[in-house]
Amino acid sequence: MSRTALTLALVQQSDQGTTEANLDDCEAAIRAAAIREAQLVLLQELHNTAYFCQIEDPALFDLAEPIPGPTTERLSALARELGLVIVGSLFERRAPGLYHNTAVVLDADGSLAGIYRKMHIPDDPGYYEKYYFTPGDLGFNPVDTAVGRLGVLVCWDQWFPEAARAMALAGAQLLLYPTAIGWDPTDGPEEQARQLDAWVTVQRGHAIANGLALASCNRVGFEPAPNGHAAGARFWGHSFVCGPQGEILAQADDQAPKLLVAELDLARTEEVRRSWPFLRDRRIDAYADLNRRYRD
Amino acid sequence: MSRTALTLALVQQSDQGTTEANLDDCEAAIRAAAIREAQLVLLQELHNTAYFCQIEDPALFDLAEPIPGPTTERLSALARELGLVIVGSLFERRAPGLYHNTAVVLDADGSLAGIYRKMHIPDDPGYYEKYYFTPGDLGFNPVDTAVGRLGVLVCWDQWFPEAARAMALAGAQLLLYPTAIGWDPTDGPEEQARQLDAWVTVQRGHAIANGLALASCNRVGFEPAPNGHAAGARFWGHSFVCGPQGEILAQADDQAPKLLVAELDLARTEEVRRSWPFLRDRRIDAYADLNRRYRD
Repeated sequence: MSRTALTLALVQQSDQGTTEANLDDCEAAIRAAAIREAQLVLLQELHNTAYFCQIEDPALFDLAEPIPGPTTERLSALARELGLVIVGSLFERRAPGLYHNTAVVLDADGSLAGIYRKMHIPDDPGYYEKYYFTPGDLGFNPVDTAVGRLGVLVCWDQWFPEAARAMALAGAQLLLYPTAIGWDPTDGPEEQARQLDAWVTVQRGHAIANGLALASCNRVGFEPAPNGHAAGARFWGHSFVCGPQGEILAQADDQAPKLLVAELDLARTEEVRRSWPFLRDRRIDAYADLNRRYRD
Repeated sequence: MSRTALTLALVQQSDQGTTEANLDDCEAAIRAAAIREAQLVLLQELHNTAYFCQIEDPALFDLAEPIPGPTTERLSALARELGLVIVGSLFERRAPGLYHNTAVVLDADGSLAGIYRKMHIPDDPGYYEKYYFTPGDLGFNPVDTAVGRLGVLVCWDQWFPEAARAMALAGAQLLLYPTAIGWDPTDGPEEQARQLDAWVTVQRGHAIANGLALASCNRVGFEPAPNGHAAGARFWGHSFVCGPQGEILAQADDQAPKLLVAELDLARTEEVRRSWPFLRDRRIDAYADLNRRYRD
């Protein structure tokens, strides 16, 4: 916990067609990150496969695997060999008929340090996640690792200030979001630009409101709709890392896979929070309505 | 409530030295806004005076006034005459020894539609607000007016996602922040740039997270420390209006007073919320820790 300098790597990928090829791609990137002295590697959401939620098909539940299971074993061996922390993202088979979208954290000694089950589940045309993923039941609990206490959240969680705040209040030193978000190719360029900018901005806002560095790792590239009846999804990449004032430290583009490496100083959090002591001034006596759906 | 098109004006001002001169300045700007067909005018925080919280001095409590009182009477007459809604910001004298930082909303018919007492009170070198302002005890309740239900908050509130969310859950159609924030002239240009960008970004984040347009009206210009022992404050202006995807619609600079006029379409909120239905997916079963100071 006394560590403050941290080299972080994000693996922005395109689907390689098979789980084996995607995991090989992950491994190559993690090895490249280790050569660049990364101590923490963040993978994108559901990195083992294409983004399969474009359609609802019961056969696709076959893609799920247990945790621990074959992927955590492979990532664990890599983490131990390279001595770094890996945050992965899996389609978890918890029981027959019970599945989650789950982030896994492999510590630098290869142990499974913890998991986070995605709490906020989206459902929009082409993103039919409520069909596949049971909402998480583990709450907002950061994971202690060799590089610090990690506030791991997943994709849609990134739009909810409550999730980031809950992680901060639980002592997270860094917010991490494996992500799969893209454009509907039928939207115009202005709408697409607003969506991308909103995605970056709302997350930078969480960094600022909590005085925490933040990293978001997104997939990139076009994935056609499996049934051919929809326009498919163009994942917009733009994986980024920002500091505790929301300042961008590194950012990929929407064109290509990228190993994005950034240097963080986790001690900046206390410095920034002394200037802007939001945690001191929260009105916890007056937030009861946040636990309501709506006031009507 | 069926209105959707709204012309909004923000009055970014510099201190004119006396309450009378500042209110004259407000009146001139409000009249200019009416000529430009504004239906809603947002004034800056504590527009009647210099930002007096640079020092702690018991004599300065004399600046406070009751609500209703002389300033609400003057603003009420203007609102009625011009047929527009005015959001002002006053140093409220509620009882001997009990003072608040309070926003007032004058409806288009001149009535006092409602008030909001600043809930989050800062206290930093040169911003000694905890000395002057008792934290608000009215909670987060938007104010119904002829132009819609207004989520009025004040300055430091703008850093707290909880405040914006509470207003959204109470049906606010628009978020409004009278503000007084500036640079410490002894900070370097990079730190100053990060602070300004963080201030804009965190508020745009609230707009995005809630699917609401947002306007923030800040003062501008240098105000020396009254005791001459500190560097004073350079208020950074940059009053702005953004839409429900956080897109900037109008923005002033840090150089000069400005009457900033923007057109809003409040119907965009439902359109945007259909695309990104965050209110549907909030995990109100899992937010209990938001009512805690910290988890330890």
